[in-house]
Amino acid sequence: MAREIRTIGVLTSGGDAPGMNAAIRAVARASAYYNIKCVGFYRGYQGMIEGDHCVLNARSVRNIISTGGTILKSARSKEFMTYEGRKKAADKLSEIGVDALVLIGGDGTFRGGQTFSEEFNIPVIGVPGTIDNDIAGTNFTIGYDTALNTVISAIDKIRDTASSHNRLFFIEVMGRDAGFIALNSGVGAGAEEILIPEEDLGLDRLLESLRRSKRSGKSSSIVVVSEGDKIGKNVYELADYVTENLPNYDVRVTVLGHMQRGGSPSCFDRTLASRLCVKAVELLLDGEKNVMVGILNNEIKATSFEEGLKEEHGINKELLRISDILST
Amino acid sequence: MAREIRTIGVLTSGGDAPGMNAAIRAVARASAYYNIKCVGFYRGYQGMIEGDHCVLNARSVRNIISTGGTILKSARSKEFMTYEGRKKAADKLSEIGVDALVLIGGDGTFRGGQTFSEEFNIPVIGVPGTIDNDIAGTNFTIGYDTALNTVISAIDKIRDTASSHNRLFFIEVMGRDAGFIALNSGVGAGAEEILIPEEDLGLDRLLESLRRSKRSGKSSSIVVVSEGDKIGKNVYELADYVTENLPNYDVRVTVLGHMQRGGSPSCFDRTLASRLCVKAVELLLDGEKNVMVGILNNEIKATSFEEGLKEEHGINKELLRISDILST
Amino acid sequence: MAREIRTIGVLTSGGDAPGMNAAIRAVARASAYYNIKCVGFYRGYQGMIEGDHCVLNARSVRNIISTGGTILKSARSKEFMTYEGRKKAADKLSEIGVDALVLIGGDGTFRGGQTFSEEFNIPVIGVPGTIDNDIAGTNFTIGYDTALNTVISAIDKIRDTASSHNRLFFIEVMGRDAGFIALNSGVGAGAEEILIPEEDLGLDRLLESLRRSKRSGKSSSIVVVSEGDKIGKNVYELADYVTENLPNYDVRVTVLGHMQRGGSPSCFDRTLASRLCVKAVELLLDGEKNVMVGILNNEIKATSFEEGLKEEHGINKELLRISDILST
Amino acid sequence: MAREIRTIGVLTSGGDAPGMNAAIRAVARASAYYNIKCVGFYRGYQGMIEGDHCVLNARSVRNIISTGGTILKSARSKEFMTYEGRKKAADKLSEIGVDALVLIGGDGTFRGGQTFSEEFNIPVIGVPGTIDNDIAGTNFTIGYDTALNTVISAIDKIRDTASSHNRLFFIEVMGRDAGFIALNSGVGAGAEEILIPEEDLGLDRLLESLRRSKRSGKSSSIVVVSEGDKIGKNVYELADYVTENLPNYDVRVTVLGHMQRGGSPSCFDRTLASRLCVKAVELLLDGEKNVMVGILNNEIKATSFEEGLKEEHGINKELLRISDILST
Repeated sequence: MAREIRTIGVLTSGGDAPGMNAAIRAVARASAYYNIKCVGFYRGYQGMIEGDHCVLNARSVRNIISTGGTILKSARSKEFMTYEGRKKAADKLSEIGVDALVLIGGDGTFRGGQTFSEEFNIPVIGVPGTIDNDIAGTNFTIGYDTALNTVISAIDKIRDTASSHNRLFFIEVMGRDAGFIALNSGVGAGAEEILIPEEDLGLDRLLESLRRSKRSGKSSSIVVVSEGDKIGKNVYELADYVTENLPNYDVRVTVLGHMQRGGSPSCFDRTLASRLCVKAVELLLDGEKNVMVGILNNEIKATSFEEGLKEEHGINKELLRISDILST
Repeated sequence: MAREIRTIGVLTSGGDAPGMNAAIRAVARASAYYNIKCVGFYRGYQGMIEGDHCVLNARSVRNIISTGGTILKSARSKEFMTYEGRKKAADKLSEIGVDALVLIGGDGTFRGGQTFSEEFNIPVIGVPGTIDNDIAGTNFTIGYDTALNTVISAIDKIRDTASSHNRLFFIEVMGRDAGFIALNSGVGAGAEEILIPEEDLGLDRLLESLRRSKRSGKSSSIVVVSEGDKIGKNVYELADYVTENLPNYDVRVTVLGHMQRGGSPSCFDRTLASRLCVKAVELLLDGEKNVMVGILNNEIKATSFEEGLKEEHGINKELLRISDILST
Repeated sequence: MAREIRTIGVLTSGGDAPGMNAAIRAVARASAYYNIKCVGFYRGYQGMIEGDHCVLNARSVRNIISTGGTILKSARSKEFMTYEGRKKAADKLSEIGVDALVLIGGDGTFRGGQTFSEEFNIPVIGVPGTIDNDIAGTNFTIGYDTALNTVISAIDKIRDTASSHNRLFFIEVMGRDAGFIALNSGVGAGAEEILIPEEDLGLDRLLESLRRSKRSGKSSSIVVVSEGDKIGKNVYELADYVTENLPNYDVRVTVLGHMQRGGSPSCFDRTLASRLCVKAVELLLDGEKNVMVGILNNEIKATSFEEGLKEEHGINKELLRISDILST
Repeated sequence: MAREIRTIGVLTSGGDAPGMNAAIRAVARASAYYNIKCVGFYRGYQGMIEGDHCVLNARSVRNIISTGGTILKSARSKEFMTYEGRKKAADKLSEIGVDALVLIGGDGTFRGGQTFSEEFNIPVIGVPGTIDNDIAGTNFTIGYDTALNTVISAIDKIRDTASSHNRLFFIEVMGRDAGFIALNSGVGAGAEEILIPEEDLGLDRLLESLRRSKRSGKSSSIVVVSEGDKIGKNVYELADYVTENLPNYDVRVTVLGHMQRGGSPSCFDRTLASRLCVKAVELLLDGEKNVMVGILNNEIKATSFEEGLKEEHGINKELLRISDILST
């Protein structure tokens, strides 16, 4: 089958992540290396439906390895969720002559791709690109490491002013369903407390922890809060609650927001993107399909979409324990 | 009088700013150079009232030139606003043997210092340290340049994701009474529109500007909003208003918040802090008092507090014009 | 005359500097704003000679305000130093229909442009873009501020390891004929000694200063050396000399090199580039020619090339004094 | 045995690495958490011999998680290589009352610690802290990830100017015996060629690769060279050789040097340091000794010094292949 693939299409879909450009570059360069054509679709599946594409040769991706965002742009496509939409996309692919797809995105992207592939018998390979790190088939997703560095760099700055004024800061980071960013950046930033969706600390324990923190001589504190934390209050409500209950605290809130999605990717994310996407192209050329590539125990491996998506990619509970010990 | 000064006190007060540590270092080192003693007070005027201080020799300030925050911490002191509070502070100064003060902070700090100096005949020199750049007696305040770089670095990251998703972002930056940060970072970040306290753009013109922006082919837009913008809506209300009136825009909000106060100071802020504080110590030794030091036309100059504080330090209206032209 | 200008050409020449892209963007956008055409020439004067150009509309310069380097590339052209070369260039301009030029570069660029303009009666405006800051007609050149931040960020890192190992580092920074970078970054990085082309410290005083530094309790030291320092030894010879004469020092050398020319420009450089280039376009439209634009006392002003280039842009000797005091 | 440990000593030794302070913090905080005393020795083994130490409680390590260098300083001790030296150190330990040691450093540090532990029956745990990543008992050493980011950030800047001038840059990175930094940063920076100690590319193949690179339309090139590359020429000789043989190249050299050892650690290095050092303290309390801790397949594991040091930690040859494909 491998010999049939003469043109590979690539797209980025879902929330964008640093390193997506490095991934696009790797797909384009690996295609050029193996003498096949590479076509990029704009705005994810939507561009595929509309046939909005460009040719990506080895030179079109020059100097993008270091840039944030995605030159192919990203979007969520409602139309692609319908059979009609996917049919249009399949027609466009055969019109343009695209034989297989590399899909860079998160779990939603993979699910859409899987359905599409089964319906129209088009080989697809998923490459995990999302800052949330919430995909079972890989230890690390592209963009996650960069997002962590962006977060701790912001918290380091906030720590400067927190320390100068003896303040308590609640800092909300991304992660609606998964606490990976909060947990790792919280440990990395030396946060006094970390609130994540996977674990309900409880308001009482939070207050107790803050009181203990003050008793132990800390003059300022940082609490990192995941968007979807379990306590069931948003970060402003949390801050109000603490202000009411610990009146001698000077509480402030920062919501880091979308800057976590941007920026020049870290070396880790660039090499990860490069390795995953070379593998993705090679798998397609080897006749593989309907799998995602991931890094598992420092090796690039393919996993079926079922496997890669089905189970929970559990957070590392050990890190919560580490955080407790280190915020002593 | 100059010969009478044997010990100089230094403190940081008000909102902290990057470069305050470089300023403290320069006061300590210049004091050592001129063979006088230097004493630091913690938490601004409050530490002075409480006598909470440390001796700063040349070695105590090693390696702090590159750090954010202030090793002396900062605070706002209600007690110092009363005569009783200031009396206590004066008593502490004579108890500790401090002959003169270098005050690093903003306009509130300077006003407090001026009153104190007149009441108790203690020479004080003000050094402008605030990210807001809103002091007439200097072209640049310590911390302003760093804050601008922090802001544009954050907006660059947001631009990555804005471009990837064709979104409109409202980004709130600091500046309750002054639009310096918004105006300069807005030009530096290539914002499509800038809203500042000094100029009422008006909601209609904002909408018109955004429509024009889209017509001209821009697929994403950044609007930089000063905390105290004139339109009279906070940034979330603004975003809602635009969403209602321009329904085909995908609008997002980021409030940059306190990270703007932290971080390693830029070279500009470090050299500015160094130059201002050497001058402050030398002025005290020369018998000068009750002035602020500033950089005016690239020279370090002393200005009376009256002069330095009384007039509006007007923003550069030319920059609004530049911004209009460049967001074409 | 102003009405005659319908197309403006722009080029970058000489050593590249961060902010050149922000400058190109401003020329293109200001041209679009005033409804005139803008053409960019590649590789400086050489591209003009060869007619190697592109049209720059408002959208062609999107998102380049934050990038280092120059999208128009830069070069030094030997051919342009001959009359024949310049004649070719003039012919190309009339062929393409370019009526006036904005030249972004340093003193060499300006001198070439002045000759060209006089010979062929083509209005040119010079915009100072060089990291060296050695042009009299402006207080700051585009790229200088960014280069300073790059240098101090590198020295901060080196300071970490110097402090950890009690070492003496010689760090060479750019500046063959001018010590601006060394002097300002030296003060900003808290260097113990600064060696610049404009001032001969002498080897004996250097040794004495290092001995004094150690006596005063410093365990590590940084000496910032300008490429063209007056002592007449290169940085490796200096290090050897010190190793021989101060045997109990553990001496290391770092030559920072070309990284000083790259990187995302600082806010200062971006707004400076924006202001200077809007002015350059407006001056051309007003019939002005053969001047450079610069920032003098915080205002954008035009200066004749004669004036702007003839006198020495003296370094700030006060900074040497400040450095002496602060390295106490 | 575990109950006998009441005081843990910690030191940093060998070349310093970003994240060493995060590691020291974790040892101190974990000790405090488990109610045992923690003592830090300055300048590695030399400070232990001299008894040069400080008490580290939970508050002494505040705010150091984000800083480069090591607050305990580092050094190589010749005296510790002798039995007499080690005897002195053991005597000092019993004098101070230190029961066990956490040793943060590289293979040399571990070998010294192993000998010491066996001779004097003092439990030691090694924590891998070195930018070189050349220790078999761990997939990643503390500092390596940060060094990679420092390197690619420098190369990104150099790429700006290389692209602007169509130049070929040779960039030397650290790694005398191991090509980890060169290989990973080379892939991350999109280098055209990577020269490492483990693989002899050969001068002919280098020239051929550069020629091919030019033929394929690349106008600038980056070659990343490990200090100890196999070709047997230093980076300046390499550049000269290429200049002679490819005369139409404009070749430049940058030696990145010691800045690779400094800087604020990445999130990866901070969490790695935190996890490894909590484990190190817990292992000591559990009666373990003479092992190193490492991260293997995303889990923190102990490995005997024999095991952890004996075998080559081979570089990832796949990355060379990836680099070849992506420099197409």
